[in-house]
Amino acid sequence: MTAPSQLKNDRFLRALLREPVDMTPVWMMRQAGRYLPEYRATRTQAGNFLTLCKTPELACEVTLQPLERFPLDAAILFSDILTIPDAMGLGLYFSEGEGPRFKHPLRTAADIAKLGVPDPHQALRYVVDAVSLIRRELNGRVPLIGFSGSPWTLATYMVEGGGTKNFRQVKGLMFDQPALMEQLLEVVAQAVMVYLNAQIQAGAQAVMIFDTWGGVLSGRDYQAFSLRYMQHIIDGLQRENEGRRVPVILFTKDGGTWLEQMADTGCDALGLDWTCDLGTARQRVGDKVALQGNMDPCILYAQPERIRAEVKDILARYGTGNGHVFNLGHGIHPEVDPEHAGVFVDAVHEFSRVYHT
Amino acid sequence: MTAPSQLKNDRFLRALLREPVDMTPVWMMRQAGRYLPEYRATRTQAGNFLTLCKTPELACEVTLQPLERFPLDAAILFSDILTIPDAMGLGLYFSEGEGPRFKHPLRTAADIAKLGVPDPHQALRYVVDAVSLIRRELNGRVPLIGFSGSPWTLATYMVEGGGTKNFRQVKGLMFDQPALMEQLLEVVAQAVMVYLNAQIQAGAQAVMIFDTWGGVLSGRDYQAFSLRYMQHIIDGLQRENEGRRVPVILFTKDGGTWLEQMADTGCDALGLDWTCDLGTARQRVGDKVALQGNMDPCILYAQPERIRAEVKDILARYGTGNGHVFNLGHGIHPEVDPEHAGVFVDAVHEFSRVYHT
Repeated sequence: MTAPSQLKNDRFLRALLREPVDMTPVWMMRQAGRYLPEYRATRTQAGNFLTLCKTPELACEVTLQPLERFPLDAAILFSDILTIPDAMGLGLYFSEGEGPRFKHPLRTAADIAKLGVPDPHQALRYVVDAVSLIRRELNGRVPLIGFSGSPWTLATYMVEGGGTKNFRQVKGLMFDQPALMEQLLEVVAQAVMVYLNAQIQAGAQAVMIFDTWGGVLSGRDYQAFSLRYMQHIIDGLQRENEGRRVPVILFTKDGGTWLEQMADTGCDALGLDWTCDLGTARQRVGDKVALQGNMDPCILYAQPERIRAEVKDILARYGTGNGHVFNLGHGIHPEVDPEHAGVFVDAVHEFSRVYHT
Repeated sequence: MTAPSQLKNDRFLRALLREPVDMTPVWMMRQAGRYLPEYRATRTQAGNFLTLCKTPELACEVTLQPLERFPLDAAILFSDILTIPDAMGLGLYFSEGEGPRFKHPLRTAADIAKLGVPDPHQALRYVVDAVSLIRRELNGRVPLIGFSGSPWTLATYMVEGGGTKNFRQVKGLMFDQPALMEQLLEVVAQAVMVYLNAQIQAGAQAVMIFDTWGGVLSGRDYQAFSLRYMQHIIDGLQRENEGRRVPVILFTKDGGTWLEQMADTGCDALGLDWTCDLGTARQRVGDKVALQGNMDPCILYAQPERIRAEVKDILARYGTGNGHVFNLGHGIHPEVDPEHAGVFVDAVHEFSRVYHT
């Protein structure tokens, strides 16, 4: 493993800690994904998505693919957010066109009582191995981001048995049996904490918590059933490794009204979707956290000149000074032309230099 | 038609104008809907959803069904938001499990140039007739709400050809050809304005604009491509009829960060989803507008005592004084037990009296 001092590009880690950089670092959520033909080829070779996630060599391969094309400032572990419930025995599978499903969704108090915290070196060993392998293959080129779904987000899938529009089961549980819901969230939070620490120890240089479904809650319920458990995780994370701080990024999709509370968790940075204004968000959080975001991923459908104009606009909204990591406000869409992604990444570097003199 | 003075229950209209009431009025978005067995029976009788919408007698029947069960303070016209594009010739149909689709989505500048403003007394006559019939059948019991989708929301379906998750076509158009998008939004806004005025003239005593998809835009794009055209509509609406003001309610799902701008359009009330706190929202809009909302519809999955507690909580968040119409933050879900809806309506009346003394 490369020593931390040998990291060739640490712009991303510096920006997360609001330290000076030469230009604004950039990466894209879901940068290793279906918009890349080479990703689709590896996925075909793997046979299915889950095998791709569970085979460290293949996960490493697709993690590195976007870095071969674009001068990205970070790599992110290729994995799925539902690895933890799978390791808990719920039986993750993917049905064509329907997304992720569980063979054994949680239906009763007994189902929840049975859940244990998976040992990341056993049932989740393929993830830890992928992190080690990717770090070795990256060879200090850019930092590696580890990640997990948030407890609320994972619990949503575990209780519903898959994706949902109406949140029938999980909100029924939350409103009718809050103590049981809390019991579930506690064990999941513990599992996420142990899992992220294992990723950090294997070489993840920053970690991100994806709260995909926090935004479907009221402010009161977000605080009680999502943010509270992300706070537990942050409190238990190993925040330093290899002589360097391991920054934590918190991202609640559609969480724009709760930035102040999120910033108070002790995380290092917030992920922002495009529905909040970056300048206003910066004023609201002050110098508590860095901000990561927040271009509408649909801008990548547009022609290069429009993409470049949007990058300029977002850089201007953040303004001068430290603490901005450029990203999309959500994962890159499968329909995007990879050349447009390249235009985006180059534009961030080109137009951001003036903000860092 | 009953003269306005003969309206037996005008609590809803008074609250929208921030006038004193004896208790907080309540209705439910999608109150005439699939959660009611009598609705499902009428729909089966109609054969399909579109026939139900296009047959004034059946639309009237289902509009009145929830009023037979619950002491609701308003009726809302039963219709679909996509009647206007259908009348423009796009060919609305519903495919099982896939939701609404158009036979002729807008694909080119020529498609958009061809669009005209439908005469509401021709292609949309079934809606106007339904409004007249419902008013007659209501016989002054409660006011009738007319409605339309917002221009941005209608344009989304018209360009995509149906529902969408990634907004590939419509955001591509918006970002690459904003002038063409504006041309589309202008004609749709004009059509909505004419349509709502026809509903008002036929007897709708309040109107609501549903901006289902405004929340997928950045603040800048919401202002330019959604709010601006809702403003055009509000500017052109007939605001008085039968000697009484016709209040306008503006509802952008996931629009909680833009309440101030929405309140500045000259509408009378804002619809709120459950992700914004009602007390904070009230402080933000001051005495410019009334507020309608905002219980998470998933609370209706819970047991009666939990529903009653939530109603109490929301009433307390709004506090004393005028200007609150109680509602769900989104349409009632099909899985909800109708008895729970009844508990909800009764609880609003029971617990709100103390706030109106």
